[in-house]
Amino acid sequence: MTAHEKLAAFYETQREAELPRSALNVMRLCLLDWLIVGRAARGDAVAEAALAYAGGEGEASLFFGGGASARMAALANGTVSHALDYDDTHFAHIGHVSTVVIPAAVAMGEARGASFETILRAALMGAEAATRFGVWLGRDHYQIGYHQTATAGAIGAAVAAGVAAGHSDARAALSNACGFAAGLKAQFGTAMKPVNAGMAAANGVEAVLMAEAGLSGSEAVFEAFAKTHHGIKDNAAWEGMGETWLFEAVTHKFYPCCHGTHAMIEALRAALQRVPAPEPERITVRTHPRWMSVCNKLMVRDALEAKFSYRALATLLVLSGGASVDEAGLQGLFPMTQATRDLMARVDVIADEAVAEEACSVTLDAGGQEIVVAHDLRAPMGFEARLAKLLTKGEGVLPKGEAARYWDVVKGADRAALLAVIGA
Amino acid sequence: MTAHEKLAAFYETQREAELPRSALNVMRLCLLDWLIVGRAARGDAVAEAALAYAGGEGEASLFFGGGASARMAALANGTVSHALDYDDTHFAHIGHVSTVVIPAAVAMGEARGASFETILRAALMGAEAATRFGVWLGRDHYQIGYHQTATAGAIGAAVAAGVAAGHSDARAALSNACGFAAGLKAQFGTAMKPVNAGMAAANGVEAVLMAEAGLSGSEAVFEAFAKTHHGIKDNAAWEGMGETWLFEAVTHKFYPCCHGTHAMIEALRAALQRVPAPEPERITVRTHPRWMSVCNKLMVRDALEAKFSYRALATLLVLSGGASVDEAGLQGLFPMTQATRDLMARVDVIADEAVAEEACSVTLDAGGQEIVVAHDLRAPMGFEARLAKLLTKGEGVLPKGEAARYWDVVKGADRAALLAVIGA
Repeated sequence: MTAHEKLAAFYETQREAELPRSALNVMRLCLLDWLIVGRAARGDAVAEAALAYAGGEGEASLFFGGGASARMAALANGTVSHALDYDDTHFAHIGHVSTVVIPAAVAMGEARGASFETILRAALMGAEAATRFGVWLGRDHYQIGYHQTATAGAIGAAVAAGVAAGHSDARAALSNACGFAAGLKAQFGTAMKPVNAGMAAANGVEAVLMAEAGLSGSEAVFEAFAKTHHGIKDNAAWEGMGETWLFEAVTHKFYPCCHGTHAMIEALRAALQRVPAPEPERITVRTHPRWMSVCNKLMVRDALEAKFSYRALATLLVLSGGASVDEAGLQGLFPMTQATRDLMARVDVIADEAVAEEACSVTLDAGGQEIVVAHDLRAPMGFEARLAKLLTKGEGVLPKGEAARYWDVVKGADRAALLAVIGA
Repeated sequence: MTAHEKLAAFYETQREAELPRSALNVMRLCLLDWLIVGRAARGDAVAEAALAYAGGEGEASLFFGGGASARMAALANGTVSHALDYDDTHFAHIGHVSTVVIPAAVAMGEARGASFETILRAALMGAEAATRFGVWLGRDHYQIGYHQTATAGAIGAAVAAGVAAGHSDARAALSNACGFAAGLKAQFGTAMKPVNAGMAAANGVEAVLMAEAGLSGSEAVFEAFAKTHHGIKDNAAWEGMGETWLFEAVTHKFYPCCHGTHAMIEALRAALQRVPAPEPERITVRTHPRWMSVCNKLMVRDALEAKFSYRALATLLVLSGGASVDEAGLQGLFPMTQATRDLMARVDVIADEAVAEEACSVTLDAGGQEIVVAHDLRAPMGFEARLAKLLTKGEGVLPKGEAARYWDVVKGADRAALLAVIGA
């Protein structure tokens, strides 16, 4: 079976099957997180521009009110939920997942009157498809410059939209989505980074709508896509599909910045608690080489760019005594003072193959002492611990009690209540 | 200046400048041809499906009536005008041009109340931008599997839509379009081939609409696109831009099949006139190697696939005594008889580096005679000769007098009359 056939078979068999409770629970946490990061983007310039572009009437709800066609709602809501770059990441997929597949599932589900349960299942199946396709493409695709969130994302969005719509021609939907998939890392640091996520969601929706309209592409597209788009075609990606759910390894962000910096933040926060002096003389960050082109931005002119800069984030943590990284702190770095610049110059970032991609090692030189702390994001975290951390995250970016209310809605499995949260 | 800056400068200066009469006249012929091939697609399954998907209400006219948003009209009309694969080709661009840029210019022009003259200028500037960008990407991009019609097309569509809308931020529009650009040759022979053209038009329109909404990408995207998408970055592509108009070398189709087969058809028609016997024993087609993966289809199951098959087309010509290639003849090949299969087996196709890409050499072995005829599509053709051939083409696919009436509309430069032709 080709990759295209394998993914089509997954789509066709699993959409009727019972899905495992553990994977569905992970998707419930992702839905909670998606609501938090989407709702927290209210007032963000990119989010508001995307909503103004998409709105205002149609069959599918937009964040903060109004409606649009299913495609436009997926485009806008996907952009909104990635605007703060605060959404989940899957390191094997090499991309953000929920910000693409959930808007597709929700928009199509609402347009077709699907149940909450169907929308949740659709999002989970889309997330698993995106993850497996991302693994199949592999690292080369990302390294050369493609934004896997958008490319593998479009495949996931097609599965999410298709399952939500009850569409049965998986091969057509997948071929169409693969042909539309696009997105470049060169857009990082601009409005088009979140738009890439939204466009992936929109491409998935449009792939399904076109398949429904009788427009479908070739079954040779997956192979051609891998050839043209530097995919390694790692067929191990398909092993156990439908039995094990790779998506369960998704990680959530507890800081509003590039996920590649989170292990550094955890390690530095721990290290700073052990430093006697208020400011270390030297901070050395050892990170996997893959992150050097992503979150080692040297020119840092605003809060958005600071989210992709180890130096700026480390500086912010030192200035706050290791308290945390939040939007207010990031904004507060600008306009940048000479003292901040001097502090940034004391941070060294070293690419180290010996450090795992999900990990980071931080060394502080302070008062003649050398303190080394490492952190690995893969350290296990149970459902309740993760839920608690997500609710705390929500408290930090939303009015008091909102995040807890969203969790009640997700637990309650009521579609109307879900749409009311999105559109409020 | 980077490629991105050069194209942005072209957009910004030329949209206010006087454009050369000769280039505008070529675009008038292209507009006539676009109306012919679009209107001739009435009843085509892919065209009708695209229109049904896009319609029915909005600010921009659809072929055969109804309206849609500017993006959806560009998507549907671009698909319709490529559905028969009978539209123009630019061999240096390596793609079809008018089917992408004209729908973008017309849809956006109508939505914004632009004059006929502005729509024509927008289409010409978009066509030139697509052509130059296609040359910049070069042959490797096409050979590896990208559909240049769609990728370079999106850049042209953004220029066309932007000029039609009077949008001034060329850099944003171009960056956005480059980030959205997608399309694979693996879709050839399916509904997604014409959809690729429509999506390119839609991507150009959406790139401009998003730029207007304040959403814009990075200026590094052109370079990243070339790196990820196997572009050779041939900077000769930008020489003389705004002074010489590469688009003027566009070629029109006078047969409803892949443009790569046209030189063969011209050569074989001429050769068949010199053959005494009704059926040659052997037909040898010598073509440039680039066409082998495009129009040397070996499995030919329907009229659509026959349009990409030297063997099927040569067989059709032999069966008709060299009369012509038309839709009725292509349909008439199926279901295929054993006699037709036997005739196809007598056609050899040979890749020959010595044959120019726009040329073909055909050898007939018939009654002990060997007849060799070559044809080159670049042989010069004046405005009046081309117009006459286009009107004849129109007579072949439309009700009597229709094509001549379209030419009156194009000559008359009346926007309302143009929209009436599209929407009738």
